[in-house]
Amino acid sequence: VKAIKDMKIRGAPALGVVAAFGCVLGVGSLKATAKKLIASRPTAVNIQWAVDRMLKVARAARGWPLPKLKILLLEEALKIAEEDVETNKKIARQGVKLIKDGMNILTICNTGALATVDYGTALGIIRMAAELGKRIHVYVAETRPRLQGAKLTAWELKRLKIPFTLITDNMIGYFMQKKKIDLVLVGADRIASNGDVANKIGTYLAAVLAKAHKIPFYVAAPTSSFDLSISSGKQMVIEERDPTEVVFVGKERIAPAGIKVANPAFDITPGKYLTGIVTERGIIFNKKGGFRRILI
Amino acid sequence: VKAIKDMKIRGAPALGVVAAFGCVLGVGSLKATAKKLIASRPTAVNIQWAVDRMLKVARAARGWPLPKLKILLLEEALKIAEEDVETNKKIARQGVKLIKDGMNILTICNTGALATVDYGTALGIIRMAAELGKRIHVYVAETRPRLQGAKLTAWELKRLKIPFTLITDNMIGYFMQKKKIDLVLVGADRIASNGDVANKIGTYLAAVLAKAHKIPFYVAAPTSSFDLSISSGKQMVIEERDPTEVVFVGKERIAPAGIKVANPAFDITPGKYLTGIVTERGIIFNKKGGFRRILI
Repeated sequence: VKAIKDMKIRGAPALGVVAAFGCVLGVGSLKATAKKLIASRPTAVNIQWAVDRMLKVARAARGWPLPKLKILLLEEALKIAEEDVETNKKIARQGVKLIKDGMNILTICNTGALATVDYGTALGIIRMAAELGKRIHVYVAETRPRLQGAKLTAWELKRLKIPFTLITDNMIGYFMQKKKIDLVLVGADRIASNGDVANKIGTYLAAVLAKAHKIPFYVAAPTSSFDLSISSGKQMVIEERDPTEVVFVGKERIAPAGIKVANPAFDITPGKYLTGIVTERGIIFNKKGGFRRILI
Repeated sequence: VKAIKDMKIRGAPALGVVAAFGCVLGVGSLKATAKKLIASRPTAVNIQWAVDRMLKVARAARGWPLPKLKILLLEEALKIAEEDVETNKKIARQGVKLIKDGMNILTICNTGALATVDYGTALGIIRMAAELGKRIHVYVAETRPRLQGAKLTAWELKRLKIPFTLITDNMIGYFMQKKKIDLVLVGADRIASNGDVANKIGTYLAAVLAKAHKIPFYVAAPTSSFDLSISSGKQMVIEERDPTEVVFVGKERIAPAGIKVANPAFDITPGKYLTGIVTERGIIFNKKGGFRRILI
C-alpha cells in the first residue's frame, strides 16, 4: 500500500500486479488488505480488477489452511504478472498496424516496461514498431508534476535506441501546429463503457489539441483497465495528490511557500476525442463521433 | 547583452527598457552595441523598438561630444522607462473592463511588474481589477521550462494578496473542461499586422483549448510590441534556447544525459484564436474570425 501511495510502483497494469502480490502478503487478513489496496489509489481500476481476481481464488479455497492458501494466491499473482507481459505483446501486435514508417508519435507519461511487468502498453506498440524495423521518432512530453516522461519514458527509449525528443508539456501545441506529430498514443487508468478515459493529467489537453489538428489519437490499454460498471467518466474519482509534488522538483522549490496549488493526477478524456482504443483483443474504433456501449 | 541572454531581465517590455539603457552604456560604439542588443534575443520586438528610438535620438545629436550624447541617451532611456509604467496602467484601464466580478482568469508566464518597469501588462489588468475591488481568482500556469509562472507570477500575486492557484501547464485543459476558467489573459513578445502573436511557449496551446471551450482569450501588450513590418507570424524568428533549461530544474537533473531535447522559447498564436488585443490605446477586437491589417 505504501509503495502504491508513494508511487514507487505506478502505471495502471503494474499497479494491478503489485496489488495481487499485496494480497499474498496480506493473506492473514485478506478482506482488510483488499480494502486498503483498493483505497490506496482511486483512479486506476486495475487494482480493483486484480484484487477481485485474488479474492475469487481465495473464496474458491475457503477453509484451506493459511500457508496453503498463501501458495495458491502466490501462484495466482505470478500468473497475473506473466499474463500482463503476454497481454502487452498482444496489444502491441494490434497497435503496431497503426504505425507507418517515418511517423512522429507523441506520447505522454510512461506506459512502457516500467509501468507494467514488461514491454508496456502504448510504449509497447512503439517498441514493437521499432523492433519491426519501422523508422519512427517519438516526442516524449515530460509530464509534470512527477515527470514520468522525462524520467522513465526517456530512459526506456534511450535504452531501446528508439529516436526521441524530450519536450515540455506546453510544447505539444507547437509541434502539432508545425505538423511534426502524426499520431498520439497514450495509456489509460480506467475506461468507462462509453469510451471515456481516465489517464495522466494532460491527456485531455493532448486529445483536444489532436482533434483541432486532425491528428489520430489512440489509447492503448488491457481489458483489465475497462470499468464497464460505469457508463461515463463522470463516475470516475480523480485523485488529488499532495501539492508538494508540484512545488518541489527533487530538492528544488520552484514556487513561493504558503500558496494554493492544484494537483489532480488524472483527467477524463471523453470518448469522442479518441480515434480508437487498442486492447489485447483488437482495436475498438470510434465510429460516428463516439463509442456505443463497449462490451468486452 | 549578457543580462538579456541569460534572462536576468526578461519580459518584452522590460527587455525594451534594458536595451535602451544598454545603448547608454555602449554609447562609445553605438552602432555595434545596437546590433548586439538586437541580436541578443530574436523574438521580442521591443528590443528593436527601443534601440531604434535611441538611435534616432543619437542621429539628431550627430557631432555632439560623447559625454553630452551619453546624458542625452540616458534621458531618453529614463523616459522610455517612465513611459512603460504609464503605458501599462493605460493597458490595465482598457483591459479591466473585460474582467467581471467573480471571474476565474488563466494566465501563463509572467507579465507583471517583474516583466516590465512596473505594474505589468496582462497581470497589470488583473492587478487593477483587484485594486478596483473585483473579486477574482487567477489560475497561474507554472510555465515550463523556466517556470516564470511558478516563480514570478506566484510571487507577485502573493505579494498583491490576489487569490490564485498554481497549476502545471498540462492542467489547463482539465480546468477548462471543469468550467473553472472564464477568461485567458496573456502577454506578447511580437504581434504581426495580421494579429498573429509570438508569446511564451504554451500560449498557442492555451489559445486552441480556449477556443474549443468557448473561453475568451485576450492578449495584452503595448503598441511597442507590434511589428507592423511583417504581415504574419510566419516571418517571426522563434528563439531555440539551451536544452539544459529543460533538463535541469535548478540543480536537479530531470532526464537522462545524452538525449535530444527541444526548447523553443515561444510559439505563434494565429490571430483567429484571439478574442482581442488590449493595448494602451484601446482594445482591438477580432471581428469575423481574424484581424484585418492592424494600423496603429
